[in-house]
Amino acid sequence: MYRSLLLVLAFSSIAVSESIIKTLPGFEGDLPFKLETGYVGVGKSDDIQLFYYFIESERNPSLDPLMLWLTGGPGCSAFSGLVYEIGPLIFDYANRSGDIPALLSNPYSWTKVASIIFLDSPVGSGFSYAQSSEGYRTSDSLAAAHGYDFLKKWLIDHPEFLRNRLYIAGDSYSGLFVPIIAQKISDGNEAGQEPHMNLNGYLLGNALVDENIDFNSRVPFAHRMTFLSDKLYKKTEASCNGKYLKADPSNGQCTENLKVVNKCMEKINLPHVLEPKCGRPLSWKPNALKWESIPLEENFSDFLLSPIRQLPEPTCRLYKFLFSYIWANDRRVQKALGIREGTIPEWVRCNNSLAYTHDVFSTVAYIQKLHEKGYGGLIYSGDHDMLVPHMGTQEWINSLNLSISKDWEPWFVDGQVAGFSIEYSNSKRGMTFATVKGGGHTAPEYKPKECLAMIYRWLAYYPL
Amino acid sequence: MYRSLLLVLAFSSIAVSESIIKTLPGFEGDLPFKLETGYVGVGKSDDIQLFYYFIESERNPSLDPLMLWLTGGPGCSAFSGLVYEIGPLIFDYANRSGDIPALLSNPYSWTKVASIIFLDSPVGSGFSYAQSSEGYRTSDSLAAAHGYDFLKKWLIDHPEFLRNRLYIAGDSYSGLFVPIIAQKISDGNEAGQEPHMNLNGYLLGNALVDENIDFNSRVPFAHRMTFLSDKLYKKTEASCNGKYLKADPSNGQCTENLKVVNKCMEKINLPHVLEPKCGRPLSWKPNALKWESIPLEENFSDFLLSPIRQLPEPTCRLYKFLFSYIWANDRRVQKALGIREGTIPEWVRCNNSLAYTHDVFSTVAYIQKLHEKGYGGLIYSGDHDMLVPHMGTQEWINSLNLSISKDWEPWFVDGQVAGFSIEYSNSKRGMTFATVKGGGHTAPEYKPKECLAMIYRWLAYYPL
Repeated sequence: MYRSLLLVLAFSSIAVSESIIKTLPGFEGDLPFKLETGYVGVGKSDDIQLFYYFIESERNPSLDPLMLWLTGGPGCSAFSGLVYEIGPLIFDYANRSGDIPALLSNPYSWTKVASIIFLDSPVGSGFSYAQSSEGYRTSDSLAAAHGYDFLKKWLIDHPEFLRNRLYIAGDSYSGLFVPIIAQKISDGNEAGQEPHMNLNGYLLGNALVDENIDFNSRVPFAHRMTFLSDKLYKKTEASCNGKYLKADPSNGQCTENLKVVNKCMEKINLPHVLEPKCGRPLSWKPNALKWESIPLEENFSDFLLSPIRQLPEPTCRLYKFLFSYIWANDRRVQKALGIREGTIPEWVRCNNSLAYTHDVFSTVAYIQKLHEKGYGGLIYSGDHDMLVPHMGTQEWINSLNLSISKDWEPWFVDGQVAGFSIEYSNSKRGMTFATVKGGGHTAPEYKPKECLAMIYRWLAYYPL
Repeated sequence: MYRSLLLVLAFSSIAVSESIIKTLPGFEGDLPFKLETGYVGVGKSDDIQLFYYFIESERNPSLDPLMLWLTGGPGCSAFSGLVYEIGPLIFDYANRSGDIPALLSNPYSWTKVASIIFLDSPVGSGFSYAQSSEGYRTSDSLAAAHGYDFLKKWLIDHPEFLRNRLYIAGDSYSGLFVPIIAQKISDGNEAGQEPHMNLNGYLLGNALVDENIDFNSRVPFAHRMTFLSDKLYKKTEASCNGKYLKADPSNGQCTENLKVVNKCMEKINLPHVLEPKCGRPLSWKPNALKWESIPLEENFSDFLLSPIRQLPEPTCRLYKFLFSYIWANDRRVQKALGIREGTIPEWVRCNNSLAYTHDVFSTVAYIQKLHEKGYGGLIYSGDHDMLVPHMGTQEWINSLNLSISKDWEPWFVDGQVAGFSIEYSNSKRGMTFATVKGGGHTAPEYKPKECLAMIYRWLAYYPL
């Protein structure tokens, strides 16, 4: 208490603006949880204003862990993770009677067991913005640095959470930030920097952790899913020597085989291979094997500008995403959230036009170091995702040569196999890898009940 | 015409009873298709009375192909194939107001493109019965012989269908009858037996064709589906030398590994690995790797006898199956179908207690011969079935060393990848193998629209 007080005094010049939100347009009555939103300035003279949603644990905020959640992209808003994945609100898709999308409580919110900061990061995502065009220029390493700075300042501003166990978490592209932020915290703690953060571990869901390994694994994954025949896969593997990414163009046999492989994979819906691919995904590029081609999510800008807003087919998952565009761009919503007027032209779920430099290609070494230092890791994979397939994740985990403390076995929810898990030991805390059976790229979006059970058990140190 | 007439005269002593059904309890109004039901006597002095449902093509019965459809088990009623897979009727699960399950039209019925005989075979299945206890003793080879006799007699009785293209078809366990019946027809035609049948080919869906190959493939399939880790799979493969069925009990390493493998697989729902396993499947035995353990479907006898009929959970697929028990055991239904009174004690979807000898273990050689003779084959696999996985099917197809005429590529329905197909050539007609993406053991039950498109195109000689 004394120490926290000191910290507040020491950093009292930090510019943090925040407000407690009691109600939200679209949600009937008072919010049944404590929501705070705000901005934290990071970067040179707080040029960059990172927006966050903080939701206290609905169980016991003083004892429950604190989680920083980053959504992928890069450029996807934290609100997407909140409303489509693990937060306490979900849209009421059946009800479209009001003049704003209706919101309901999510019974499988991870805020049932943890307090969560949903951070719009990097700058340019969601409601985060920069006060100069220079500030908008960002990269993997800058995004990680800003995430760390954000957390430091946020904790100074919220010293009552300094003693809670802290987890850095995220999915998809944030696999390139999460381990770096965790490492920075660990280093900062060791260097005696204030505030000391009670880092306990990290979480990664279908995370991009090693570009080469993860993208390369799409080809063997497609084979496992029967999208490639045994013969085609074997000859492609042989001719390309198992390297499908940036394949040598002078290797004619490999190039030729990859063309056929691409033909088999290109019309598959990557985030969940059994779901239909939605019509006209404007920003999706055809070549599924190149880096540039990671589908950067839907592009609804055309839709929002069009005078007649024709909804995509309700059978299509993009339809669900549309609700967030309408909701988050409503003036009443932005007022309620405390969004500063004129700071962003339009809220998009995923911003495809960041001024972004991709400069981190693997965070495997960070994860290894975190493991050695005794930080716990939960790494989970929806097993029907072809964007970042579980096979790549398992491959980089295997490359760490960790010793197994609990070997591969099923984990259960309601007596059903929810997936499979394996645990790797450490003198302090180990690493758990878990598949989510039938899950897609963002596993909690597809298997909410199973994923809440998973996170509840893991945070409580129970086996899955 | 003259020839047909002659045949009718020649075989006029054949005992076939049949009736045309205009209405059915549970279906509002007249049936929008022509349904005939009846019995055909086979075996010694027609001791065995095989019951069938014949539905004329809803398009052009005089030109459209004729299909004999056998449902698996052994012992599953043809009505199961009719109402849950490819027939023109489906239960109205949402509506339970009447005193009998309501029936609706199935927009994806295969009778849109073919006339289909749904045969209750072998004896003891559905409404088929024997007039002596001796007659009930049957086997794979007897079932095939009776199926052939049935068809001969049925065609003599329906000479107007003698010129239609004829296909022998079925799924699951009927993979052990279908190729034999087709072979008998081919042999009969060559031997000049009457009636000459216009056999064109055969269809097999997730069919048991080679017991060793098909069941063995469950282990590599489980690996591909991420139910086994790479390490566990590799060491099991090595220690068991790739033979998981009837593994040598003196091979301790293999036995030990298979125990772990079993632990990973035993709680998975075999007919569709992503669906939940229903509660208390009374007749399902635990060991998924032994022959005796093929889940012989649900056992609702207890349910039917119980004074309080408590329905299984609606989320469970067994719930759907229950409708057929109530419907087919209703006296009004049996009267409408022309069921002979007192012939069977109770209709069950799948009869687990046949007096049955399993005496055919592979029909691969039959299929090879049919291919050589130029009969077309459509072999399809729902790719999420672990009862008879697509990998086993592909393995025995590969063992035939056929030449490929159209290599592996996706096939589409509504612009979506519906699965992948490959064609093998022959001077006359080839063999097509197709996966049904996301389909389970009975693919049309899971992917009706895609499967109708598949059968429509294949019967029309179009590429899938």
